[in-house]
Amino acid sequence: MRILLVGAHGTIGRAVAEQLAPRHELITAGRHSGDLRIDLTDFASVQQALRDAGPLDAVIAAAGNLHFAPLADFTPAQYGIGLADKLMGQVHLVLAGQHVLRDGGSFTLTSGILTDEPIRNGSSASMVNSALEGYARAAAIELPRGLRINVVSPNVLVESLPAYGPFFSGFEAVPAARVAQAYVRSVEGAQTGRVYRVH
Amino acid sequence: MRILLVGAHGTIGRAVAEQLAPRHELITAGRHSGDLRIDLTDFASVQQALRDAGPLDAVIAAAGNLHFAPLADFTPAQYGIGLADKLMGQVHLVLAGQHVLRDGGSFTLTSGILTDEPIRNGSSASMVNSALEGYARAAAIELPRGLRINVVSPNVLVESLPAYGPFFSGFEAVPAARVAQAYVRSVEGAQTGRVYRVH
Repeated sequence: MRILLVGAHGTIGRAVAEQLAPRHELITAGRHSGDLRIDLTDFASVQQALRDAGPLDAVIAAAGNLHFAPLADFTPAQYGIGLADKLMGQVHLVLAGQHVLRDGGSFTLTSGILTDEPIRNGSSASMVNSALEGYARAAAIELPRGLRINVVSPNVLVESLPAYGPFFSGFEAVPAARVAQAYVRSVEGAQTGRVYRVH
Repeated sequence: MRILLVGAHGTIGRAVAEQLAPRHELITAGRHSGDLRIDLTDFASVQQALRDAGPLDAVIAAAGNLHFAPLADFTPAQYGIGLADKLMGQVHLVLAGQHVLRDGGSFTLTSGILTDEPIRNGSSASMVNSALEGYARAAAIELPRGLRINVVSPNVLVESLPAYGPFFSGFEAVPAARVAQAYVRSVEGAQTGRVYRVH
């Protein structure tokens, strides 16, 4: 397959690339690196990247920013960061990609464990991750031509513990290589509308 | 209790008011009617309405617009309608209300069955309703002073079938009076972080 991997240079993206590269043609994309430059928050940039990528059988999104802060201090604009970036950025890929992916192609998006297990400072993450999962359930029943869509919900990564460990006290961190398997399962499998929880 | 009911003149709002009015003091609010005018999409308007309402023990939101359209035709801006109105409108009430509600007060927000059961044209509704439910789960663990937050997820209303029936083919519509009981349960009960599904 020809697979567009957005966020290829992140911790998850690198692990996904390692598992898919031996048997697929990967086109990597990122804000600052990769075969293609893409700004997920800009729909025109997403459309351009999909044109530049050429024919595709799968799009993987392992990218998306959002804000962490105490609920008491959160501002509407800070929620807007996650809505514009991690949520609508990935939705942009689906909106543009549904018209250009080959028949039977797939979208694999990224949410996170905070959908199910909230933490302090994580109200935006819980909001955005839940939104992505609900969106994928809905998009799955409307996509044409056998196109599929799934979401991977990773736990905190072992590799991210130095940076985020204190926020995820008591969470059983998972290695990125294990999370990557869920992306492989989504791309090479046949399910749609699923959330693969790697918790 | 003193209860602010936003969306008091909608089908759900009227049913909620009927059940709560005999034993509570209701302050009604809406975009075009009620004791107070409120534009949920405008944080300043929400803050002003909460100041005007005076001391409150509960805030109920039974309001929120979003766009319905085929996935193939959806634009980013059309998703923005639901994110700004039904999602952030209700979040605005929590952000402002957390600082002014009396100890032990509660927020009761409104999502909908499309979180769990998607329909054609409903990808924005599934996104927004899921986001609200995830947000409430997260906010529940951070709210101070015994404040609580729950979400009511109604099925399509019997009263709405003339307008929306064709979109909800085969759904077992519920009367607004039954949905209203979930709001009563949230306001007068002691749970938090719950989604009351009236499906």
